[in-house]
Amino acid sequence: MARRSCFFILFVLLLFPMSSRAVVPISDDTQACIDCHAGLNPGIVKGWEKSRMSRVTPAAAKEVPTSRRRVSFETLESSLADSVVGCAECHTLNPGDHRDTFDHNGFEVHIVVTPKDCAICHPVEVEQFGKNLMSHAYGNLQNNPVYRALADSVNGMHVIKDLESTVVKPDSETDADSCFYCHGTVIDVKGNVTRETDDGEMTFPVLTGWPNRGVGRINPDGSKGACSACHTRHQFSIAMARKPYTCSECHKGPDVPAYKVYNVSKHGNVFSSLGGDWVYDNVPWVVGKDFTAPTCAACHVSLLADEEGEVISNRTHQMNDRLAWRIFGLIYAHPHPKSPDTAIIQNTAGLPLPTELTGEPVVKFLIDAETRKERRKQMQTVCLSCHGTTWVEGQFARFENTIKTTNDMTLAATKILLTGWEKGMVKGLSRKDSIFNEALEKKWVEQWLFYGNSTRYASAMLGADYGAFAHGRWYLSKNIHEMLEHLKQQVKEDE
Amino acid sequence: MARRSCFFILFVLLLFPMSSRAVVPISDDTQACIDCHAGLNPGIVKGWEKSRMSRVTPAAAKEVPTSRRRVSFETLESSLADSVVGCAECHTLNPGDHRDTFDHNGFEVHIVVTPKDCAICHPVEVEQFGKNLMSHAYGNLQNNPVYRALADSVNGMHVIKDLESTVVKPDSETDADSCFYCHGTVIDVKGNVTRETDDGEMTFPVLTGWPNRGVGRINPDGSKGACSACHTRHQFSIAMARKPYTCSECHKGPDVPAYKVYNVSKHGNVFSSLGGDWVYDNVPWVVGKDFTAPTCAACHVSLLADEEGEVISNRTHQMNDRLAWRIFGLIYAHPHPKSPDTAIIQNTAGLPLPTELTGEPVVKFLIDAETRKERRKQMQTVCLSCHGTTWVEGQFARFENTIKTTNDMTLAATKILLTGWEKGMVKGLSRKDSIFNEALEKKWVEQWLFYGNSTRYASAMLGADYGAFAHGRWYLSKNIHEMLEHLKQQVKEDE
Amino acid sequence: MARRSCFFILFVLLLFPMSSRAVVPISDDTQACIDCHAGLNPGIVKGWEKSRMSRVTPAAAKEVPTSRRRVSFETLESSLADSVVGCAECHTLNPGDHRDTFDHNGFEVHIVVTPKDCAICHPVEVEQFGKNLMSHAYGNLQNNPVYRALADSVNGMHVIKDLESTVVKPDSETDADSCFYCHGTVIDVKGNVTRETDDGEMTFPVLTGWPNRGVGRINPDGSKGACSACHTRHQFSIAMARKPYTCSECHKGPDVPAYKVYNVSKHGNVFSSLGGDWVYDNVPWVVGKDFTAPTCAACHVSLLADEEGEVISNRTHQMNDRLAWRIFGLIYAHPHPKSPDTAIIQNTAGLPLPTELTGEPVVKFLIDAETRKERRKQMQTVCLSCHGTTWVEGQFARFENTIKTTNDMTLAATKILLTGWEKGMVKGLSRKDSIFNEALEKKWVEQWLFYGNSTRYASAMLGADYGAFAHGRWYLSKNIHEMLEHLKQQVKEDE
Repeated sequence: MARRSCFFILFVLLLFPMSSRAVVPISDDTQACIDCHAGLNPGIVKGWEKSRMSRVTPAAAKEVPTSRRRVSFETLESSLADSVVGCAECHTLNPGDHRDTFDHNGFEVHIVVTPKDCAICHPVEVEQFGKNLMSHAYGNLQNNPVYRALADSVNGMHVIKDLESTVVKPDSETDADSCFYCHGTVIDVKGNVTRETDDGEMTFPVLTGWPNRGVGRINPDGSKGACSACHTRHQFSIAMARKPYTCSECHKGPDVPAYKVYNVSKHGNVFSSLGGDWVYDNVPWVVGKDFTAPTCAACHVSLLADEEGEVISNRTHQMNDRLAWRIFGLIYAHPHPKSPDTAIIQNTAGLPLPTELTGEPVVKFLIDAETRKERRKQMQTVCLSCHGTTWVEGQFARFENTIKTTNDMTLAATKILLTGWEKGMVKGLSRKDSIFNEALEKKWVEQWLFYGNSTRYASAMLGADYGAFAHGRWYLSKNIHEMLEHLKQQVKEDE
Repeated sequence: MARRSCFFILFVLLLFPMSSRAVVPISDDTQACIDCHAGLNPGIVKGWEKSRMSRVTPAAAKEVPTSRRRVSFETLESSLADSVVGCAECHTLNPGDHRDTFDHNGFEVHIVVTPKDCAICHPVEVEQFGKNLMSHAYGNLQNNPVYRALADSVNGMHVIKDLESTVVKPDSETDADSCFYCHGTVIDVKGNVTRETDDGEMTFPVLTGWPNRGVGRINPDGSKGACSACHTRHQFSIAMARKPYTCSECHKGPDVPAYKVYNVSKHGNVFSSLGGDWVYDNVPWVVGKDFTAPTCAACHVSLLADEEGEVISNRTHQMNDRLAWRIFGLIYAHPHPKSPDTAIIQNTAGLPLPTELTGEPVVKFLIDAETRKERRKQMQTVCLSCHGTTWVEGQFARFENTIKTTNDMTLAATKILLTGWEKGMVKGLSRKDSIFNEALEKKWVEQWLFYGNSTRYASAMLGADYGAFAHGRWYLSKNIHEMLEHLKQQVKEDE
Repeated sequence: MARRSCFFILFVLLLFPMSSRAVVPISDDTQACIDCHAGLNPGIVKGWEKSRMSRVTPAAAKEVPTSRRRVSFETLESSLADSVVGCAECHTLNPGDHRDTFDHNGFEVHIVVTPKDCAICHPVEVEQFGKNLMSHAYGNLQNNPVYRALADSVNGMHVIKDLESTVVKPDSETDADSCFYCHGTVIDVKGNVTRETDDGEMTFPVLTGWPNRGVGRINPDGSKGACSACHTRHQFSIAMARKPYTCSECHKGPDVPAYKVYNVSKHGNVFSSLGGDWVYDNVPWVVGKDFTAPTCAACHVSLLADEEGEVISNRTHQMNDRLAWRIFGLIYAHPHPKSPDTAIIQNTAGLPLPTELTGEPVVKFLIDAETRKERRKQMQTVCLSCHGTTWVEGQFARFENTIKTTNDMTLAATKILLTGWEKGMVKGLSRKDSIFNEALEKKWVEQWLFYGNSTRYASAMLGADYGAFAHGRWYLSKNIHEMLEHLKQQVKEDE
């Protein structure tokens, strides 16, 4: 018997990867998809085969204890619950809601899988994501006249005549290739196309704004967002979502350099140096055992616990419920807005901004001191997993000091711009001109959008190297000198 | 017997790495090299020992089925075919052709191994590489007067006197340390040197331009290029050549930021997050099974197949046979040149450029619409492994729109420069001055060499974060404002 | 018996990770720490459990042969020698020396572990580190008036009134969040605080400059530095210290872009592509066998040997004993200073700089030609592990040429600035003004601090892509044009 055990162990060790797939219940519909597409798009099918979704039925996923559960539905009809989640389960769901539904070999297929589709199994996460600023990333840019003007100034075409430039509004493909790549496009059906395929003539919908997987995408079923922005299709690996590379797709540029800062932080160093040995797919994610330094997800999203199963932090797809301050994107750092829809905000000057041009927060639309305190505490609980109280309090005091000093450096730049506007050397609001289309205005934008943000991120996430000379304080200061000289010289010329 | 099997399996598992080297046929000449150099340069010898070349004879490499074969020779004399490929096999090959051949302990050794040497076993790949623009990277820079002037303006020394700068032509070491590090230097023998060594006095050739492993290196046997640029000596790992880090050695800077764009793309994210589990050394490289997102090599070089062995894309070392457009390096994006030797190109103004200064392509030297269509289709076949037709067509339409808009933004900058030249505020072509040596000209160069290129790469390779604020559209637009203000101010001063 | 062996091997293979901890002698004091903190700060305790320190007693560490030994103490009292190195062993050491010692549940605990604490087991390394410029990083910045003025200009707040800016000295939190994050803060006790904890009311010291782990930190026991800057607490992984990510925490920005250059070098490529299979924790570190391309540590710190145990390079924590030239941080590259305390240096103009403003080295304070030759040889010995003599000599000749040309390009910029100062268009030394607070001065700083440094790093470490367009020669040249136009325009205005 002992001999048999020995063999059995070897057998399991060697053959487990092969044998584990044998009993997977794939629906007939999904099998029909695979029969053709395994040859047509092998990468999609093989990728999916590597996913957890291809191996675990929703019913089985629900059976595990709450703390380890990866689904949040209450009930699910048997046709969905008892097959693994394959092509058909997602791409034929809610056909009536999807304007991109089309007949495809007898199936009602849609191309764009949406949060509403994912909510069948993950309703809690989708609801949380609805409160996330990211789910409103399209409207918060497109429907905010100040931000739309900024996008126009970045993406618009310059037509030059006699040393004057006229900026023409960008076409939709350029917008989709730039800001809205991450913010999300509007996906809609603009017609049909018939293509000659290996299986004869077939008709497909033609989509606007496609391809896109921006976090605030407006979908053909009216929903907002794209889970696949972070939960990359078709492997949907939780390990991948927890790695910082996922966030870096949209958070690496100078306007929001979270990844670059993380990379030079001690946290990033530990991840890069030792993270090859970590466990990334445990639920809950066990601090110290599974990983010894946080990734983005650890601080901002994941359900964290200690080895005894004690919860340190609950899972959130709202994300800013662990954040008191919004440190990027706007002119000044400010308390987080109450609503994820920021297009509703108006300051006293009537501008759709959460602060005045001189920095005072528009308190009515922003979370109050009590809520900030609670959120700060949420984050600090995560920090305390690996740091003492003295450390954590020192860090937060320093960070809040940096919020103040970077706001002050933005105010300095704004005062220079306001003087330029007043003296008429730069056109601006009072002349009903874009505030983003002259050289001095561009420098002003860089003061907050690049250098202020970068310095704050470096402070918040302990990546000082990025906040000193790389893209932070050196430029915050140099830019003031350049703005002043730029304006003084125009004064001289005008005299 | 069962007990013995158990032991046998354990034995194989534990001892395989040691036992596998036992039967390797190393030539006497190579063994002689190793006998000294294992002590002198242990890193080289141990690196080579980890290579496939040190374990497989060319004869054995040829025996595998064509689709899995890594060599392309027809016949090889037995002295080479039946030993593994070691020091002597490469460094004593074709001694008569190599001006760097020298007598070394009785062997006719040369230092610089060249594509002509590698072609003994890999003739098809070397022939393909001869059609690759990269193999002409030295001459395409050095023999193009416009580009040589750009290099002079970058690498030349400034001598300041009374607020005037004279630019002195760069010395050859500076060139070799800058542009020609990647483009390749000219390696030639300029004399001999005698050194006291552990084995007594020995004489070695002194080489110009050494060290260098640039892709367009001019070798002492007259051949062009360096396979070791990508196939890093002395491990020659195909896994390494297939990883994006290899390309990043020369394709990360703002003039050609392919790696930076890849890094923030979904493809790059999948590679960084999940690529630790991939298989990088299979031939053919199986889409979906070996890897689930492309590296540079997957799209541009490798032989790809699906799990059934169906070829998706043939191996190419020409690379641009999957590319319709040349999106970097020149002033405007344009169809790829027909010949890898671009020094032969002349536009209507007599400049060695594939477009006019105002952007119109010099069609005579460039591939036609039909060829572009074929090449686009080659690339799209790769895309379709993991994406649907709707997705792929949308992506390519968007990319071609970006080619147009970035060319237009370069034209806008060019018009400003042309006005400056016309009005005499900037010296230029008509005054027979370098077009790269004044502040306004430098800004113009950045418009296409940095910002236009970066925006196109971001579009082509789906890394929008890089093309928005990092080094793309923000600067394309800001630069126009700065060029205009710069020139207008000079107009005022001259008035 | 054979059957039993079979079981035994399986047993060891499967259970080793669990069983290995069973016999570890943890001191009662450390166990007392763990009893509470395992729940309070699980990340710290689990991190430490993964460390070598948690498994090996100093006595056992001393028993291994010298060449493989990781400790350097001569004798150690039994109370420390025979327990593993846990919480109490470090945090209660030398209580009388530590101004941050406080009573904590009956233990005399200090928060900040210092090199003096680490020296109990690692005295040789700590002594070497005392000769390292890094251990003086605080004073070399804070006590050098020129450098303190630079820091003030970077971190100070600008207050704008009537198009004039007044720069207010930075507060200490801003300094700590910027330059001194890496250089190190002064940690001292400024009072006590009583907190309500799970175990009732407890009193803790309040520290200035905390948190910080800068390499030149001034500690509450009067010592300089922080071993944890590179040997990250609480895993203290030698593998991590040997990976380039550790160095990148402070050496990635444009002032000292060592990591960025490494990343695009062949060395960095080999590490990124193949380093996943390397052995990082062997002592000595075996060239070719453990790794096939150097990380930062391999060239600058580690004890290297070949497979036969022949030492290639001795371990050093001084680091610059393998470096002839100091290529960054100061205005011109120059021979390394003799003393790690550079605040003692004075040039003939009375400035605390190792060169004159026009580049001539202040030889009295710098290592002589003989020492430079020795240090160059030290480094070349490492290079020769994997490169031939011809290669190495060519590389060093090219690098020293780049030192000359980049110094010349800095001199060109300095001449322009000196003219500005002379003509009074820029205030400067003679007007007793900061030399860092005007737009032209900022450009001058960038010439050496960013572009000169970057070009030299790219040359020294073979990452040419970074030294051409990314942050090197392109800007070295462009900046001269911009400085000239800037100054000429002011001349015109003043006429």
